[in-house]
Amino acid sequence: MEKRELLYEGKAKKLYATDDPDILWVEYMNQATAGNGAKKEQIAGKGQLNNTITSMVFKLLARKGIASHFVKRLSENDQLVRKMTMFPLEIVMRNVAAGSFAKRYGIKEGTELASPVLEFFYKSDPLNDPFINNDDILALKLASWEELEIISAKAREINKALRSIFADVDVRLVDFKVEMGTTSDGMILLADEITPDTCRLWDTRNAGTANEESDGVSIEHLDKDIFRRDLGSIIPAYEEILDRLTELDESQSGSDVTEN
Amino acid sequence: MEKRELLYEGKAKKLYATDDPDILWVEYMNQATAGNGAKKEQIAGKGQLNNTITSMVFKLLARKGIASHFVKRLSENDQLVRKMTMFPLEIVMRNVAAGSFAKRYGIKEGTELASPVLEFFYKSDPLNDPFINNDDILALKLASWEELEIISAKAREINKALRSIFADVDVRLVDFKVEMGTTSDGMILLADEITPDTCRLWDTRNAGTANEESDGVSIEHLDKDIFRRDLGSIIPAYEEILDRLTELDESQSGSDVTEN
Repeated sequence: MEKRELLYEGKAKKLYATDDPDILWVEYMNQATAGNGAKKEQIAGKGQLNNTITSMVFKLLARKGIASHFVKRLSENDQLVRKMTMFPLEIVMRNVAAGSFAKRYGIKEGTELASPVLEFFYKSDPLNDPFINNDDILALKLASWEELEIISAKAREINKALRSIFADVDVRLVDFKVEMGTTSDGMILLADEITPDTCRLWDTRNAGTANEESDGVSIEHLDKDIFRRDLGSIIPAYEEILDRLTELDESQSGSDVTEN
Repeated sequence: MEKRELLYEGKAKKLYATDDPDILWVEYMNQATAGNGAKKEQIAGKGQLNNTITSMVFKLLARKGIASHFVKRLSENDQLVRKMTMFPLEIVMRNVAAGSFAKRYGIKEGTELASPVLEFFYKSDPLNDPFINNDDILALKLASWEELEIISAKAREINKALRSIFADVDVRLVDFKVEMGTTSDGMILLADEITPDTCRLWDTRNAGTANEESDGVSIEHLDKDIFRRDLGSIIPAYEEILDRLTELDESQSGSDVTEN
């Protein structure tokens, strides 16, 4: 596979064309951003960790029957994915109140939600990625009704599978963001990345090692909130997630043939 | 009917108990506010106009089969309504991009939407009435799934009926906000008010008399945007709405028995 021209540079990844029109080359960068780019830093080792973690998560999800754009990890910072026409939507699933959700509705961070919440945000840097509902999406023609139904069902399935994967390694999946797109042959697939940059992951294994105490809640963040909230280095936390997922993967891989 | 203790004072109305536990006394005030109370003014005649307009609209809606909490108009500023347990939701229907919607999604004001849009806002002064989606409403237990289904269906029916009523008097119904609640016997009903305070109403009769030109669009506002945007006095506009609805009502009232 040959790497060709740069197609897009995002906040944490670069996308390149390849000699195969259906395949893109993704390079994970070391850049960390928060607040829609207001806070920005280079963190050595981050790109490599996220490239490896998302490759692992997509593999673990595939074992649970959830397909994605992921093709293969090429090197420390690079992977191949299927080329897709992306929906301009951030697709957020929440199990526990945290971050902007907790603030928006005045709910204490850490409150388990009565039911998982699906939210969409319209991907637009000039508009600051506004919250958007299903009717708005239809009126703005960002997706059709049928596409929205599929996207919503997939988001809920992904949440169920991811919660189970992270629960297996003693991590509470608080919320996460994914993106989806359509392949050239019309299939809607999970895309983008699933990493501690895009999930809130709270440790449930090491009680008493919390890196944040707020409102009487002790949280051991294993995610980008460490960067957003200036709680220390993200690297040991991201390494911890990778180590646990690697262990889970190894415990499963002996039984790959029969487990489904 | 006897007016008793003040139960609630809102931005434009006061609610009193009566000697009937199922009936409330509503007094329409002259106060106008915008920006969640940031701008505030007393406007002589406004309370009386809104009391009369909303009584008329509820009557015209009832003729189209849409029930509401409205019982009867008592005097210039007062009316009786059924007592309800209110959902803490602002229920917004939009047919044309305007106001916060146009700003939020970067759409030119005046753009007809591909399909009518239903949006909910969580009524909370300290939180500044945040936008909220269906999943959020369920997770926060502001309404059940079944209630949301009924509320949504009713909002769309009300929009259809109101559009038709206003089209009959050469007014374009751009968007509006209503509230709903549940009666003591468990019926979900339209409540609050429907006035130029809570609707965006654009004149289509008097071309060339626009009170705002923006982005190449000429608009003759017959609604509270005149106040929000400092475009003059709201009183003649509100009177115009009342006059046209009165004319419509009179043209219909001879045929009340047979028209449904």
